[in-house]
Amino acid sequence: MPKKSSNGSVKKKVFAYLGPVGTFTELALAQVAEAKGQIWLPVSHVQEAIDLVLSKQAHRAIVPVENSIEGGVSATLDALAATENIRIYGEYLVNVKFDLVARPGTKITDVRTVATHPVAYAQTRKWLGEKLPNHHHLPTTSTAAAAAELLESDIAQAAVAASTITDHYKLKVLAKNIGDNKNAQTRFIQIGLAGSMAERTGGDKTSVIVELPIDRPGALLEMLEQFAARGVNLSRIESRPIGDRLGRYRFNIDVQGHIDDDAVAEALKGLHRFSPKVIYLGSYARADKEKSVHEGNNSNPEFASADAWLKKLKSAR
Amino acid sequence: MPKKSSNGSVKKKVFAYLGPVGTFTELALAQVAEAKGQIWLPVSHVQEAIDLVLSKQAHRAIVPVENSIEGGVSATLDALAATENIRIYGEYLVNVKFDLVARPGTKITDVRTVATHPVAYAQTRKWLGEKLPNHHHLPTTSTAAAAAELLESDIAQAAVAASTITDHYKLKVLAKNIGDNKNAQTRFIQIGLAGSMAERTGGDKTSVIVELPIDRPGALLEMLEQFAARGVNLSRIESRPIGDRLGRYRFNIDVQGHIDDDAVAEALKGLHRFSPKVIYLGSYARADKEKSVHEGNNSNPEFASADAWLKKLKSAR
Amino acid sequence: MPKKSSNGSVKKKVFAYLGPVGTFTELALAQVAEAKGQIWLPVSHVQEAIDLVLSKQAHRAIVPVENSIEGGVSATLDALAATENIRIYGEYLVNVKFDLVARPGTKITDVRTVATHPVAYAQTRKWLGEKLPNHHHLPTTSTAAAAAELLESDIAQAAVAASTITDHYKLKVLAKNIGDNKNAQTRFIQIGLAGSMAERTGGDKTSVIVELPIDRPGALLEMLEQFAARGVNLSRIESRPIGDRLGRYRFNIDVQGHIDDDAVAEALKGLHRFSPKVIYLGSYARADKEKSVHEGNNSNPEFASADAWLKKLKSAR
Amino acid sequence: MPKKSSNGSVKKKVFAYLGPVGTFTELALAQVAEAKGQIWLPVSHVQEAIDLVLSKQAHRAIVPVENSIEGGVSATLDALAATENIRIYGEYLVNVKFDLVARPGTKITDVRTVATHPVAYAQTRKWLGEKLPNHHHLPTTSTAAAAAELLESDIAQAAVAASTITDHYKLKVLAKNIGDNKNAQTRFIQIGLAGSMAERTGGDKTSVIVELPIDRPGALLEMLEQFAARGVNLSRIESRPIGDRLGRYRFNIDVQGHIDDDAVAEALKGLHRFSPKVIYLGSYARADKEKSVHEGNNSNPEFASADAWLKKLKSAR
Repeated sequence: MPKKSSNGSVKKKVFAYLGPVGTFTELALAQVAEAKGQIWLPVSHVQEAIDLVLSKQAHRAIVPVENSIEGGVSATLDALAATENIRIYGEYLVNVKFDLVARPGTKITDVRTVATHPVAYAQTRKWLGEKLPNHHHLPTTSTAAAAAELLESDIAQAAVAASTITDHYKLKVLAKNIGDNKNAQTRFIQIGLAGSMAERTGGDKTSVIVELPIDRPGALLEMLEQFAARGVNLSRIESRPIGDRLGRYRFNIDVQGHIDDDAVAEALKGLHRFSPKVIYLGSYARADKEKSVHEGNNSNPEFASADAWLKKLKSAR
Repeated sequence: MPKKSSNGSVKKKVFAYLGPVGTFTELALAQVAEAKGQIWLPVSHVQEAIDLVLSKQAHRAIVPVENSIEGGVSATLDALAATENIRIYGEYLVNVKFDLVARPGTKITDVRTVATHPVAYAQTRKWLGEKLPNHHHLPTTSTAAAAAELLESDIAQAAVAASTITDHYKLKVLAKNIGDNKNAQTRFIQIGLAGSMAERTGGDKTSVIVELPIDRPGALLEMLEQFAARGVNLSRIESRPIGDRLGRYRFNIDVQGHIDDDAVAEALKGLHRFSPKVIYLGSYARADKEKSVHEGNNSNPEFASADAWLKKLKSAR
Repeated sequence: MPKKSSNGSVKKKVFAYLGPVGTFTELALAQVAEAKGQIWLPVSHVQEAIDLVLSKQAHRAIVPVENSIEGGVSATLDALAATENIRIYGEYLVNVKFDLVARPGTKITDVRTVATHPVAYAQTRKWLGEKLPNHHHLPTTSTAAAAAELLESDIAQAAVAASTITDHYKLKVLAKNIGDNKNAQTRFIQIGLAGSMAERTGGDKTSVIVELPIDRPGALLEMLEQFAARGVNLSRIESRPIGDRLGRYRFNIDVQGHIDDDAVAEALKGLHRFSPKVIYLGSYARADKEKSVHEGNNSNPEFASADAWLKKLKSAR
Repeated sequence: MPKKSSNGSVKKKVFAYLGPVGTFTELALAQVAEAKGQIWLPVSHVQEAIDLVLSKQAHRAIVPVENSIEGGVSATLDALAATENIRIYGEYLVNVKFDLVARPGTKITDVRTVATHPVAYAQTRKWLGEKLPNHHHLPTTSTAAAAAELLESDIAQAAVAASTITDHYKLKVLAKNIGDNKNAQTRFIQIGLAGSMAERTGGDKTSVIVELPIDRPGALLEMLEQFAARGVNLSRIESRPIGDRLGRYRFNIDVQGHIDDDAVAEALKGLHRFSPKVIYLGSYARADKEKSVHEGNNSNPEFASADAWLKKLKSAR
């Protein structure tokens, strides 16, 4: 139940998101059930959104974590690695559809400069190269900022932005769905302070960040065996530099299952012994709603049965 | 403290061993501290010794389990696999030294037939072949029985037996230490009913029997990974047929450490989930007194620390 | 084609086997197509048969290697490990059926002493214990020797022997098929000098003996990974003591496939680098005629394609 | 030896690099011995540099591949994955030192807007946040472009650029070495058409891109075992999305050793069988000059010895 403020009114919760309005992140936020009717606060950097959560100025932050074309979002991955105090509470998939938009009255033949975020530019470059071979690219901090730019100056004649941008800005669509890959998706996560946890649903995901022991050949293999020995499947592994020197990586890992699945819990404990640093990022429902299965007799009842067996053996003395 | 019988006298415990007196097993029994002053009961088969334990007619049984030349003692390994109700309480090493003995007055040139157990014969065959090229072998059920035979009939003129046989029989040594391998050793175990356990000493061994899932290529590798993932080292692995058909084996495994070492306990639980059948045979002090070490941060304090970490993570909700 | 001797007659080949006539080994020899019409030479020890091959007095030796109840035949396994000069040319399965036989005129109630080989005794002990609870056991060097014994002395009144024994000795069957396990089988191998090889049939087996690097925890796991990395499945692994001291084992390994399967060849080379000692025992058709499959894209065409790819990469300079 | 053109003059080779002049990439190019005295051609995109190589308009391209703070350079990694026709011929490390530069006469207190590439901005954000808390960021396509911008317009009052920028532009240094991490490095690679290869030096690196078989849990572990089984150590593994849908990754892998190291060659062949797609990117000298060692008896002489052994076994027929 929402908290009430001192004057008796219900106090709304702040959901920070990578804005401005009209970004793909806003589409992700729209999928968050708990955010309905709460305060949606656009910010301009991933780190800013996370900082608002850490300082309790925001209840939650919605940020992109991975794009099917571009890969991991470094800013998010690095922010997650910088603190042990935050958790992931959910994930959301957004289909990435780009339109070419312009001020009303603009024709496609008028376009010499296209404003957009570099990532959006990379994903529409083939289309732009074919249809507008002589265009220039004006980098902006977001696709929504590119759209806004059109209304503020005439440096650019068109912008590449999310299809929903026309809900927010009075712009005209010059071309629809111009992305080079029509199936492109971005995955977003909901981040909050540690201290609560999404319930186990049976179709869950657990995220961790793991560093490897230094100068130990085969350390990555050994780390993966911590999961394999408990039948826990990885759905994602992504390396990021630790940053102190070249050749040192941490791994962002998503596995099937919840911390309340014993197989996952025991694998986490294995990682804690094995690794010089493990950050637990949380367990939450999978966006694709598929079941999380632990292979090779590693279900909770089988863990319970093994526990009971061991206890009986140990008590016989 | 020894129990007292109804008439007030202390009731002695029965230690069954593979006899008769004068066998290597008796030398192993002599190493068992708790057996001092108790009843030593020689029996003629491993299974008989174990049956006496199972029926509580004997407190413990001392039987050979492995010989450095001959390998595992099948009778013992198979008896261990046939019940879940017994435990190993200790292991003992005996140097295997064979003498050629004869009735007083016999000269080596008189020897035409040599009585001994087939295993002892196999281990002295080279010496016998060189010194007595035309001898015959009379198989007996033990080396001590071979010595006894000399005093009962004149079929054989000499026997191969343990060096200590002359403490029991009035026989003469024709040749000392005639074994082909001077470093031969036999390992013996002390077996009792489940219900008690040797304390963790820090230099321990744990024995299990494990069957593999059927028709799963790589199952042995997966089983070994249950140990590797917890840094538990194997000191012995020996296959024995399950007996139902060719190609089906169970594995007798000794690992470093005690069931009270968390690394061992967790590996046992992993086996219990993985394997269709695991028999826990016990944890007991190593005969060689070496320390049992668990590699890769798998000591008890590190397990405790990982447990505490996980509990904290799980409680945050 | 059989060789001709100097006087023009065809010179027959000698097939040594673990005799005497009437043993299970003779039944295995009867399955060896090339042995038809050749000389069948019974010997009394496995080592003797192998020695005849090594000294070229016998063309081949047929010896037992594994029994579904008793496990590996130590004498054979140890003889194979003692030389690099012999090869396995085939394997043969024999169903182990035991009968209780006696001199004509003997009734089962007359039987006080039963002669047989200790292994046969172990496999019929349950039946004997029930039907002849007060019998004594007279150990003999083979089941056929036990049968022969009946005709030579009256120490024993009955013998446990192969069902086919009555083809060789004038004895009467007191009870048929008295084995405790009705599905018991023994596997035999045909051994010859290195220098020839059974052709690849697509349903083959390759046997090796491998020692592990000393004092390297996880060495067994690493050894098995040499097979796994090439998709080669093990059908048998059996440890045998090296013999120099307790705790040192060599492994007798059978894998699916022929040395002419590239997956097997590369795994063998991997073992050669990894292990301080590998003995190649040969590649030969499986007795069960099943296909040998290499998992995970490890067929010969896939090896050839990878080779071609690498050669192309390396030649580009 | 340089080729001569038709008119007898020596024809110079084109080395394309991520420009403009004054970028860190130019510092990497300066380390390329073969580039001395040749044509240095700055381009504005990684893909453009690679396209010039593919179309033979450039002999080689020098592009960044990895930064110790930011991680892999997606544009380079994705360009490498898009063709099998290019090879890496060398790698070069550049220490990343950023200066804040401005038009002569500018004081630090004048700075309201800072122009720089987003990656450089991310790496100096802490310093800028402290010293210029109210600044705005103007994104540019490179740090050198940011410097150039200062001389073309007055939108920005300062730029963050490589320390060497003042060799190229008449600018003043407002603050030196303002990077948040003083040890930051970027690794660059020299790319050319396939058809030639850097010689094995004994201190080499081999780069590949590997896709995993679909929907096979544990596929990453299996892939890594292809290296482990030959004692080949990974120095880098980095995942990149394949791009067709979320959850599908390819792995950019650097291993120790040269394709002329047998251990590496055999591991490559293993990958070719295992993976639906492997791209070989080349073998080249390590920038850090350290030796490439293959663990566990996997040197070339040991491979040769294993080959000879196998050939002998196979020829015996």
